[in-house]
Amino acid sequence: MICEVGPRDGLQSIDRVMPTESKKRWIKSLYNCGLREIEVGSFVPAKLLPQMADTAEVVGYAKQFADLTVVALVPNLRGAASAFESGAHRITIPFSVSEAHLLANVRKSHAQMYEEARSIIALRDAEFPDAKVEVSLSTAFGCSITGPVSEMLVRDLAVGAIDMGVDEISLADTTGYANPDQVKRLFSLVRDSVGARCAGAHLHNTRGLGLANAFAAYEVGIRSFDSSMGGIGGCPFAPGASGNVVTEDLVFMFESMGSATGIDLEKLFKARDVFLEGLPDEPTYGMISQAGLPKGFSVFSA
Amino acid sequence: MICEVGPRDGLQSIDRVMPTESKKRWIKSLYNCGLREIEVGSFVPAKLLPQMADTAEVVGYAKQFADLTVVALVPNLRGAASAFESGAHRITIPFSVSEAHLLANVRKSHAQMYEEARSIIALRDAEFPDAKVEVSLSTAFGCSITGPVSEMLVRDLAVGAIDMGVDEISLADTTGYANPDQVKRLFSLVRDSVGARCAGAHLHNTRGLGLANAFAAYEVGIRSFDSSMGGIGGCPFAPGASGNVVTEDLVFMFESMGSATGIDLEKLFKARDVFLEGLPDEPTYGMISQAGLPKGFSVFSA
Repeated sequence: MICEVGPRDGLQSIDRVMPTESKKRWIKSLYNCGLREIEVGSFVPAKLLPQMADTAEVVGYAKQFADLTVVALVPNLRGAASAFESGAHRITIPFSVSEAHLLANVRKSHAQMYEEARSIIALRDAEFPDAKVEVSLSTAFGCSITGPVSEMLVRDLAVGAIDMGVDEISLADTTGYANPDQVKRLFSLVRDSVGARCAGAHLHNTRGLGLANAFAAYEVGIRSFDSSMGGIGGCPFAPGASGNVVTEDLVFMFESMGSATGIDLEKLFKARDVFLEGLPDEPTYGMISQAGLPKGFSVFSA
Repeated sequence: MICEVGPRDGLQSIDRVMPTESKKRWIKSLYNCGLREIEVGSFVPAKLLPQMADTAEVVGYAKQFADLTVVALVPNLRGAASAFESGAHRITIPFSVSEAHLLANVRKSHAQMYEEARSIIALRDAEFPDAKVEVSLSTAFGCSITGPVSEMLVRDLAVGAIDMGVDEISLADTTGYANPDQVKRLFSLVRDSVGARCAGAHLHNTRGLGLANAFAAYEVGIRSFDSSMGGIGGCPFAPGASGNVVTEDLVFMFESMGSATGIDLEKLFKARDVFLEGLPDEPTYGMISQAGLPKGFSVFSA
């Protein structure tokens, strides 16, 4: 299962604001490609991220697609309340394994962030029992402030989150530091403790290893992957250096291995145009959309 | 072991000709980074590839580095004779698994190409017994003319080559069609028949899977990889779409997994400048050289 995070992680890192109607058209086109999980926005103060000011409306729009899981990112209880009220099926709480990173970004210690997550779970349990809560353990593979992070700490934070009632954990290579051996080792370690609730991989391609890391995660049983169309978001450095793993390339990798994603690659290439209508001339990345499918390649047909 | 093929595969696909003195400086800088295998050129008619007209001189220059394996590509007996005479330590014979591809490119059938390889082996045995002969099975993962290729045919061609006295086989994803599962399967299949003589992987990044495929090959025991500095060569399609696997990114992947390459990444980033002095403004690719090493990353130190 591929979760398209472009409308959130991608748009959030672009200064220009995509008009709400364009977001809707893009989400519709993503759905029509076969994507069944889309992170459509984040509930953060509009002053900080005007790109995300319309997230409640966008969630409402996306919910018309009956079999689409609509995901929203929330940094705190206030955001979670808004997300639950909007009807998001799942919320993602970013929780930095590096406490220095957490303090720098949201001025919270691990203990304080646990407290916030506990309040969110309590709210969910009391009023929105159908909503799923995911914790994304960011900087799980290394931190740009402190360097290496402890793998035992990643595991302990995952266990703590599951113990408090979080439905799923994902491991995020926020900084693009991960390597394939580390990916296999860390997912295996966390899965040994929390089982299949350690479900998702959020990988960046900052240093070129995005797909190698995705393959490594796949090999140890991970089947949920975040990625963004055109590789937008995830802090790209320069032309050619995408941030997030590119959805098109990731789908191509899985489909070429015979692992059906349910996503139509040819349609996906065309959906890039819908994105670009909403943000003209925005740089996009990815290889397969440029190179084209191999001769004789069997495109998904539902 | 990483074999830098930029001076051959890279320069060969660029219209401009790098001056001989620039090639020498570049090769010297690659050696100083720690590279110990370099494919320095090909022995082909200068009319067809003026970029390679100075290969004999370049081989002679490269041989001053006592522990450097100097490799040259040869398409036929005539080229092989020149390569042996120049003192190349190893020659690579490209042998297309797709007969249609072979006929289109060198107007030879498989049987005729076997004949050519046999003559080369006979010459080597008679007059240049120290030289190594490698056959690179190109289009092993798919052909842009015929699409899929038979994995059994890849194996049979490999067995045939080893039987006639070829020292090593490499599998080449000439078209950028390979996927990681296929890489593991095909290398394992060929190794089951010819053992460790199936030694090398020549992978392209045309569709973004270059490093994922390299990791897959690594997982089934392959330790020899071709790559090119800046991803030059291998038929790039567009900016950001490199052809050959990028040496810098490949080294980063292996070093980050703790698999020592003997190559100094910081020096490698600087060696890009030496390449660009020889071919100003030539597009180069790769992520790690743009993003920089992770904080706390242990750079190789010999």
